[in-house]
Amino acid sequence: MVDISELSYALDTFYFLICGALVMWMAAGFAMLEAGLVRAKNTAEILTKNIVLFAVACTMYLLVGYALMYSSDAGGFIPNLGFLIGAENSVDAVLAGGEDAPYYSARADFFFQVVFVATAMSIVSGAVAERMKLWAFLAFAVVMTAVIYPVSGYWTWGGGWLSEAGFSDYAGSGIVHMAGAAAALAGVLVLGPRKGKYGKNGAIYAIPGANMPLATLGTFVLWLGWFGFNGGSELKLSDVSSANNMAQVLVNTNAAAAGGVIAALILAKIWFRKADLTMALNGAIAGLVSITADPLSSTALGATLIGAVGGVLVVVAIVVLDKLRLDDPVGAISAHGVAGIWGVLAVPLNNADATFGAQMLGIIGIFAWVFTASLVVWLIIKAIMGVRVSEEEEYEGVDLAECGLEAYPEFNVAKK
Amino acid sequence: MVDISELSYALDTFYFLICGALVMWMAAGFAMLEAGLVRAKNTAEILTKNIVLFAVACTMYLLVGYALMYSSDAGGFIPNLGFLIGAENSVDAVLAGGEDAPYYSARADFFFQVVFVATAMSIVSGAVAERMKLWAFLAFAVVMTAVIYPVSGYWTWGGGWLSEAGFSDYAGSGIVHMAGAAAALAGVLVLGPRKGKYGKNGAIYAIPGANMPLATLGTFVLWLGWFGFNGGSELKLSDVSSANNMAQVLVNTNAAAAGGVIAALILAKIWFRKADLTMALNGAIAGLVSITADPLSSTALGATLIGAVGGVLVVVAIVVLDKLRLDDPVGAISAHGVAGIWGVLAVPLNNADATFGAQMLGIIGIFAWVFTASLVVWLIIKAIMGVRVSEEEEYEGVDLAECGLEAYPEFNVAKK
Amino acid sequence: MVDISELSYALDTFYFLICGALVMWMAAGFAMLEAGLVRAKNTAEILTKNIVLFAVACTMYLLVGYALMYSSDAGGFIPNLGFLIGAENSVDAVLAGGEDAPYYSARADFFFQVVFVATAMSIVSGAVAERMKLWAFLAFAVVMTAVIYPVSGYWTWGGGWLSEAGFSDYAGSGIVHMAGAAAALAGVLVLGPRKGKYGKNGAIYAIPGANMPLATLGTFVLWLGWFGFNGGSELKLSDVSSANNMAQVLVNTNAAAAGGVIAALILAKIWFRKADLTMALNGAIAGLVSITADPLSSTALGATLIGAVGGVLVVVAIVVLDKLRLDDPVGAISAHGVAGIWGVLAVPLNNADATFGAQMLGIIGIFAWVFTASLVVWLIIKAIMGVRVSEEEEYEGVDLAECGLEAYPEFNVAKK
Repeated sequence: MVDISELSYALDTFYFLICGALVMWMAAGFAMLEAGLVRAKNTAEILTKNIVLFAVACTMYLLVGYALMYSSDAGGFIPNLGFLIGAENSVDAVLAGGEDAPYYSARADFFFQVVFVATAMSIVSGAVAERMKLWAFLAFAVVMTAVIYPVSGYWTWGGGWLSEAGFSDYAGSGIVHMAGAAAALAGVLVLGPRKGKYGKNGAIYAIPGANMPLATLGTFVLWLGWFGFNGGSELKLSDVSSANNMAQVLVNTNAAAAGGVIAALILAKIWFRKADLTMALNGAIAGLVSITADPLSSTALGATLIGAVGGVLVVVAIVVLDKLRLDDPVGAISAHGVAGIWGVLAVPLNNADATFGAQMLGIIGIFAWVFTASLVVWLIIKAIMGVRVSEEEEYEGVDLAECGLEAYPEFNVAKK
Repeated sequence: MVDISELSYALDTFYFLICGALVMWMAAGFAMLEAGLVRAKNTAEILTKNIVLFAVACTMYLLVGYALMYSSDAGGFIPNLGFLIGAENSVDAVLAGGEDAPYYSARADFFFQVVFVATAMSIVSGAVAERMKLWAFLAFAVVMTAVIYPVSGYWTWGGGWLSEAGFSDYAGSGIVHMAGAAAALAGVLVLGPRKGKYGKNGAIYAIPGANMPLATLGTFVLWLGWFGFNGGSELKLSDVSSANNMAQVLVNTNAAAAGGVIAALILAKIWFRKADLTMALNGAIAGLVSITADPLSSTALGATLIGAVGGVLVVVAIVVLDKLRLDDPVGAISAHGVAGIWGVLAVPLNNADATFGAQMLGIIGIFAWVFTASLVVWLIIKAIMGVRVSEEEEYEGVDLAECGLEAYPEFNVAKK
Repeated sequence: MVDISELSYALDTFYFLICGALVMWMAAGFAMLEAGLVRAKNTAEILTKNIVLFAVACTMYLLVGYALMYSSDAGGFIPNLGFLIGAENSVDAVLAGGEDAPYYSARADFFFQVVFVATAMSIVSGAVAERMKLWAFLAFAVVMTAVIYPVSGYWTWGGGWLSEAGFSDYAGSGIVHMAGAAAALAGVLVLGPRKGKYGKNGAIYAIPGANMPLATLGTFVLWLGWFGFNGGSELKLSDVSSANNMAQVLVNTNAAAAGGVIAALILAKIWFRKADLTMALNGAIAGLVSITADPLSSTALGATLIGAVGGVLVVVAIVVLDKLRLDDPVGAISAHGVAGIWGVLAVPLNNADATFGAQMLGIIGIFAWVFTASLVVWLIIKAIMGVRVSEEEEYEGVDLAECGLEAYPEFNVAKK
């Protein structure tokens, strides 16, 4: 005879694992999106960065990050140093029941959390593409996934001071996406723009991505993966209320992405006179980021509108960042940072438990920490090994210099 | 203590959501398939169409379509006008039990249904590729997903007159796939063939797709997504009989796709002397479409054969449509329309509850409605804004004209 | 009122089906990986092989293989000849309960098994790429999936002599991956290397793959699919212990892949002075193959190390195979064969139930059978229809010769 507590435990564990697998899939989405939006000569290197950063994130979070983020006391700023993940739940503990009985596998929890770290790190790789040294990037990835992300993660999801202060960020518009964007912004500042991106007298030159089907595929992959990202963040499935919540979360996540696409496309058409595909793609991502801070409280129509605002913001932000000569080849800072802030600030519109003040505090706290810590780390890496490839390597493309191979060796590619 | 009704509700909800996520993934499949089968110069535009149509479908079905399709009385022709989706199920209603108690989330039902609409619309984009104005297409998408699909959807799955008449279409060979093909056919008739496709004296010129890996990827994505499309259409998982049914559905769906691939490949080898990859891909899709009307009643061997017939039909249909000078760049009308009709007609072979008469009635009813309504809408759009790009834009490629960018800007692409 | 045994049955069935769907997705991964690692002129043909081999595997395993593998008595060498799959479980049998009561759908079991066969066969296609006749390959696929794989599958998972001897191979490092590699090795020996791969005086010429984004995408797809491959091999989910096990399996599978990436990248950097992307990709696959023989017993850190050893081995093996003039364009024999052997041998390190002797016996037994049987079949096919395309076809590319189309017809591709 099957025990119902065991069955419930199995279902919730399965739910976490499937959602985690979908979030892992987002790593492929970032890889394809970024590979499509850079030039052909830098494609193999961005692919290398994407698969290796995922591996680094999984390993460092296992060794250090997870324990740092989740094993400290509530309310603090500085987490206790910890290593490795803890023990699995026993059958007895599950069967004992009660308020504190575990209701899903501790390992499944780790699996779900580890792929989130990789997501935050993936955001960085696009913004610093086409000019950063591969090994400098990987060195940053080690610190980001072992320490920087886990510290602010402890502040929020780990029960630290921001959690106590009432900061509300369901699946991580701020904790994951804006954090990734903050680290990326620090990197872009240290690194400077690509050669040929900005000219005299404020001239800005478009550097089109080499492969639009890849970029579109990447966006669809992210869209799908986001169902796991947001859906799994309900953290429970096995009762009517939780199941209803997960369904609402998926409906809203999808609706926000749709709203982002439509709004970004229409704005691009009005502003640039063209139905710019890259803006539609960034609109989808911005819509997804926007709803991530609270995909549960709004109606589907409300989610569409929140996503649409995100879609508008990302187009404006991309233009503004270019005016500021902050060179982000894939628009990551705009899509994850600006839309992330919007998402966090939009929570009180639908969720009475959230306050504008606590949301602002969260944005400032996370941004200040991640940006500052990242800036320090980037500067240290710059001092030790340098962060930027040589001018000649940049002109020839980083693929040959860093990876010793080309992404499309047989194709006749114009060197731009 | 967990309540077993709640647990069952959670499992069925989760099942719907996962199947819905897989169907959403089919949108990526159509995007890749179509991007692979058009020429390079029209690739960015078809990608734009695919991601935007998905967003439009999700939004219009939320605003209008879902209520139209599912909130009217049984047996009718004309649904009551409705807006937005209804309320979620309460815990009390679930715990009350009984025949009519809800057993899964209403939001999960919407999520599963909304991605079906997008599938129907995705079929259209391929058939009208390489020559239709982007915004004319999107205008059609609005009407198709808000009204045209929901009306015949109400007739069948919504409990309308075709449902009452005994029409049987498990997951939508007719309701989704043939409906999409009917709308596509109307569009193709209004639009005319691509320049250079047909010459004097019945000459037909092949226009190869630019990127076979993308087309193959798209087919694999569709194959995977179809497990959600058909598997979710069982509408229940949480008892032995339903679970067995879902397993049979997945086995048969897979078997039919396999049968379609093998049959199409062998026929192409015999007929054209070559193992034509595009025919194998269309064979897979035709096999999948064929089994969709009833993936439950046949054995796995029977499903292989149903799929194989679909695979033969699609090859023949592609050749015949070309003879008729109906220019469908990706073979969508053949794969979804012809195989869809075959699938609907094949149901009585294995399912004693279905009759040939009711199946014919369904085909005629759905086709007549969707084709006629689509034709009217296409003609109205043509009158207002035109449906076809200029000759020069068609020659230069619609990417630059419509989207202001190229899909492969650095690659040296021959203009064909 | 829902019965708890039925609910448990439904959950376990769903778990198998979702895992099976993920394994099916690996077929897309192999297709993309191989399409990315061959030259442009041979891309359409390798895509054709990949989708058709999947269809052939599904059909032959349905007709013959499954019954051969699972319907014979325990302990034997030669399975009884069987056809088709058996009956589905009845509700009564489930409700009767007891030790032998079925706890998940028999069709779900078939679905999960059939996609494994396709995986084994997918390994072969890459190794013999760019020079083998399409139809010779497909003829081999028929025999491999109908007989060769099922016989050694019967020896192990089907309860035959290797199972009795204590051979332990959780998800198939040996049974699936090394078996595929053994069949591939036999094919490579019969076929010989590609023209231009090896020169005089031991010269080895690199033949770079045409499309790195595709290869990377394929690797990510395989990584994701592997969660189903290993996760489903727990064979049960619905109690605390099984759920915990599945979670551990996913954590370890992910960790091993990460370890493989990092180790292969670092070794490549040290050895070749470049962060070779293709080595990182093969490192991921080798890490996954390595952990597949026992993804349950080790800690996550242990899994990282097992994967890392696999990542080192695959780099070394690729170099050694080239020295031996065994031309494997995608590194399949190294990644699946060498890492597969390592994975099988590593089981006793963490699992006290396994012995080094039984593991060696398994490797020798499976390799001897699959390699010898494959060699005989390859030689028979060679005698009847030839296995190798003509020199001219090889120079021009097999795409036009076999498939009558090109993978990238509009792109200006250098003929290498």
